Amino acid sequence: MPQNIYDNVAFFDLYSQLDRSVQGLSGAPEWPALQSYLPPMEHLRVLDLGCGFGWFSRWAADAGAASVLGVDLSERMLSRARSEESDGSIEYLKADLDSIELAPDRFDLVFSSLALHYVKDLASLFNKIHRSLRGNGRLVFSVEHPILLAPSDPGWKKLESGSTIWPLDGYLDEGPRTVNWLVNGVVKEHRTVASYLNLLIGSGYLLRALEEWGPSQAQIMEHPEWSLERNRPYFLLVSAQRGQDSVA
Amino acid sequence: MPQNIYDNVAFFDLYSQLDRSVQGLSGAPEWPALQSYLPPMEHLRVLDLGCGFGWFSRWAADAGAASVLGVDLSERMLSRARSEESDGSIEYLKADLDSIELAPDRFDLVFSSLALHYVKDLASLFNKIHRSLRGNGRLVFSVEHPILLAPSDPGWKKLESGSTIWPLDGYLDEGPRTVNWLVNGVVKEHRTVASYLNLLIGSGYLLRALEEWGPSQAQIMEHPEWSLERNRPYFLLVSAQRGQDSVA
Repeated sequence: MPQNIYDNVAFFDLYSQLDRSVQGLSGAPEWPALQSYLPPMEHLRVLDLGCGFGWFSRWAADAGAASVLGVDLSERMLSRARSEESDGSIEYLKADLDSIELAPDRFDLVFSSLALHYVKDLASLFNKIHRSLRGNGRLVFSVEHPILLAPSDPGWKKLESGSTIWPLDGYLDEGPRTVNWLVNGVVKEHRTVASYLNLLIGSGYLLRALEEWGPSQAQIMEHPEWSLERNRPYFLLVSAQRGQDSVA
Repeated sequence: MPQNIYDNVAFFDLYSQLDRSVQGLSGAPEWPALQSYLPPMEHLRVLDLGCGFGWFSRWAADAGAASVLGVDLSERMLSRARSEESDGSIEYLKADLDSIELAPDRFDLVFSSLALHYVKDLASLFNKIHRSLRGNGRLVFSVEHPILLAPSDPGWKKLESGSTIWPLDGYLDEGPRTVNWLVNGVVKEHRTVASYLNLLIGSGYLLRALEEWGPSQAQIMEHPEWSLERNRPYFLLVSAQRGQDSVA
């Protein structure tokens, strides 16, 4: 039985109050960086893995995508997403990313925001996505950065010297991490940056770009409460391409 | 005037006593991982950037390389390297990696061990290396991992909870770091993992593999004093390929 924290009532209520839940993409400070990885949407067939409330699915449809399939495990989130959609250009599907089946040669863009760190068998999913992409189709995704997720006690610590540091440990030991985020006991999968990228390369993708995202100095000027955030990355953003099989 | 710490007498004496200086490649615990990235050496034209005492240059020559060019800024290290070489198959050259000129279409393998974190203009060097590679020639290198190099106060810290952590800060702010390593005031350039890889991609390389290296559990069994080393990576190992210009 896959973990489905998003259908937990307490979690769902708190999650629904986050900036990114209320304001959508404009409430996600990493969105401009992630958006810079996206091709023009016109005529693309788009798959949105872990679509949540459907903010990205609606953005892609509004930007001219030929079709959008939004997938999520949470019935509550899909229900909200369906209620926000008006013109029928988006299809929503309930599925678990660890067991989802994807038709081959189907999509031009597979997008996933902050969902893949819940997936247990990521090698299998990257392979399935690769087969489902057409031509030089792209996979663009974000996950929590492994530096954020690794520690046994994640949270800023003030040292005797006065400096505030991120207490990194366990980075090289991959596996589940149980974190208290909105509610207690949310389980995410810790993988190193190298593992994410080697899994992509091993599935045949070409790596196009990545970003270890933290707020820019301009964003910190607007949000002084983020001033510590340049000390370690918060998200890992990746752009990969289905690529050429001719690469030796 | 480039920093040339390796010709500092105190530094040189201490550096000469390190396992990796006395035992060569077998004294470098990351060597097996780095070696796994290397193609068969037979008939290759090899460039060794930051060759130091010439351990890798000699290994490549002994393994059948057609030619080996070892480059270093340190006259002391080159002098030692030349004295260890007997049959004339290796050429040694004194040059600064920030201003080196490389002939185009010349090498099949460019190797660099723990030297590129001293280079100020790495984009320029990656471009020069790319032009100097032939066919699907490879660039294989190691650097200190950015997580190791970033902190303002690098060293294990014991928290009140009893756990020992790596005090990460400054990760997203790139630039020189002055560290006390063997002697005081050694300057290295901090770049994020993303920057290393984006610079490679931007120069036209295909990324083949990377490793965020720390000792394996087997190595820790042999060296119990390394038990903390799984808490953060120590080296970043990268294998890249000159690649196809057809990638969009």
